[in-house]
Amino acid sequence: MENEYKHIKVIGFDADDTLWVNETYFREAEAIVGGLLSRYETPNKIDQELFKMEIKNLPTYGYGIKGFTLSMVEMALEISNYEVSNEIVAKILKIGKEMLNKPVELLENVERVLTLLSKKYKLIVATKGDLLDQERKLEKSGLLKYFHHIEVLSDKKEENYIKLLNHLEIEPEHFLMIGNSLKSDVLPLINIKAKAIHVPFHTTWEHEIVKEEEKSNRKYKTLTNLEATLELLI
Amino acid sequence: MENEYKHIKVIGFDADDTLWVNETYFREAEAIVGGLLSRYETPNKIDQELFKMEIKNLPTYGYGIKGFTLSMVEMALEISNYEVSNEIVAKILKIGKEMLNKPVELLENVERVLTLLSKKYKLIVATKGDLLDQERKLEKSGLLKYFHHIEVLSDKKEENYIKLLNHLEIEPEHFLMIGNSLKSDVLPLINIKAKAIHVPFHTTWEHEIVKEEEKSNRKYKTLTNLEATLELLI
Repeated sequence: MENEYKHIKVIGFDADDTLWVNETYFREAEAIVGGLLSRYETPNKIDQELFKMEIKNLPTYGYGIKGFTLSMVEMALEISNYEVSNEIVAKILKIGKEMLNKPVELLENVERVLTLLSKKYKLIVATKGDLLDQERKLEKSGLLKYFHHIEVLSDKKEENYIKLLNHLEIEPEHFLMIGNSLKSDVLPLINIKAKAIHVPFHTTWEHEIVKEEEKSNRKYKTLTNLEATLELLI
Repeated sequence: MENEYKHIKVIGFDADDTLWVNETYFREAEAIVGGLLSRYETPNKIDQELFKMEIKNLPTYGYGIKGFTLSMVEMALEISNYEVSNEIVAKILKIGKEMLNKPVELLENVERVLTLLSKKYKLIVATKGDLLDQERKLEKSGLLKYFHHIEVLSDKKEENYIKLLNHLEIEPEHFLMIGNSLKSDVLPLINIKAKAIHVPFHTTWEHEIVKEEEKSNRKYKTLTNLEATLELLI
């Protein structure tokens, strides 16, 4: 293993798009909504307006599928100039429910990586989103047995991680976070003197994309898949 | 203080309708929705249908205002036979947002009770609902300083409390829960050999109401307000 990680005792994993597929389902939902509203606008414009609505509503709704569904409905009303049919609104509600009831699709080699890492480190999950939804996905995933602690956070900023590490009595220098989002799983950790490894997913929500200048001079590794962490950590 | 509570070291407080007003806002929302949909049904029927919709959606949405808003929209579509106007749907979304942005109205003497109890016991909050919403209310309440730990639970059943007490390394016999809901804050605690005090709020959501037979032979005290706990505990 690399010297850089010799002080690590606890590894935190992001969940959505790190342990299992998530963003793909949001993109699929957007494509369906684009189709439902195609008489009013182009798919591209609909995507843009939905994104704007999500960002506008984020302080009120927070992250997760329920807020996303409410934003889809609100966008449909506005983009249609309040002419969208009740049937389309009902279909949007149904998209949200289907997202909440999707089976959990693990990413490649997740179980193998967790099995090996759990022999050497204490593993935790630190994820954001709807509480019930995240708990349910962890249950469905069959991965609960690998984790000492599950924390669903309302956001993943520096202060959220500081609180979490305090609560679990973990020193930042003993903590490594692994996740797909530079903004949520990597940069805040580097800023509080913990370690982070970036394992990008093929799709990233626009809101999670970090500008080049924010990335510069940061100390973290980027790996192409979760399995590649084993070489560094075992 | 009463002998019965001599082993108590940690007191858990429910939040909604125990520390601050909550249910009142749901009842107000229902009254407004009843008005908006009055051309389709009587207020009583609308209330009933909304309740049915909430219970149907509870396994998918969980507790909290976002799920409640989605259920209001779905009920409005159905009760109007898919004829409700977009303007009314928009108003329902607005009711949900206003609920999420309401100021926090503390119940009587809450600060005094917490000040006195926090000198003798470790205090925690155990609440259910939307994560971000509950965190925001605690921030707004100004009560955070009294609590060692805040736990937002997806549900308040025996297993949720067992997990919480394990996680915080608290023995059930050292734990007392205080809350307004017999179903969520009292009976599950009695069943796991912890203590509970019931402080009813003037309004209880139908879903939280417990049948007489379930209450019989249970050991807990019911007090008319939070201040009355001081006599038993200090």
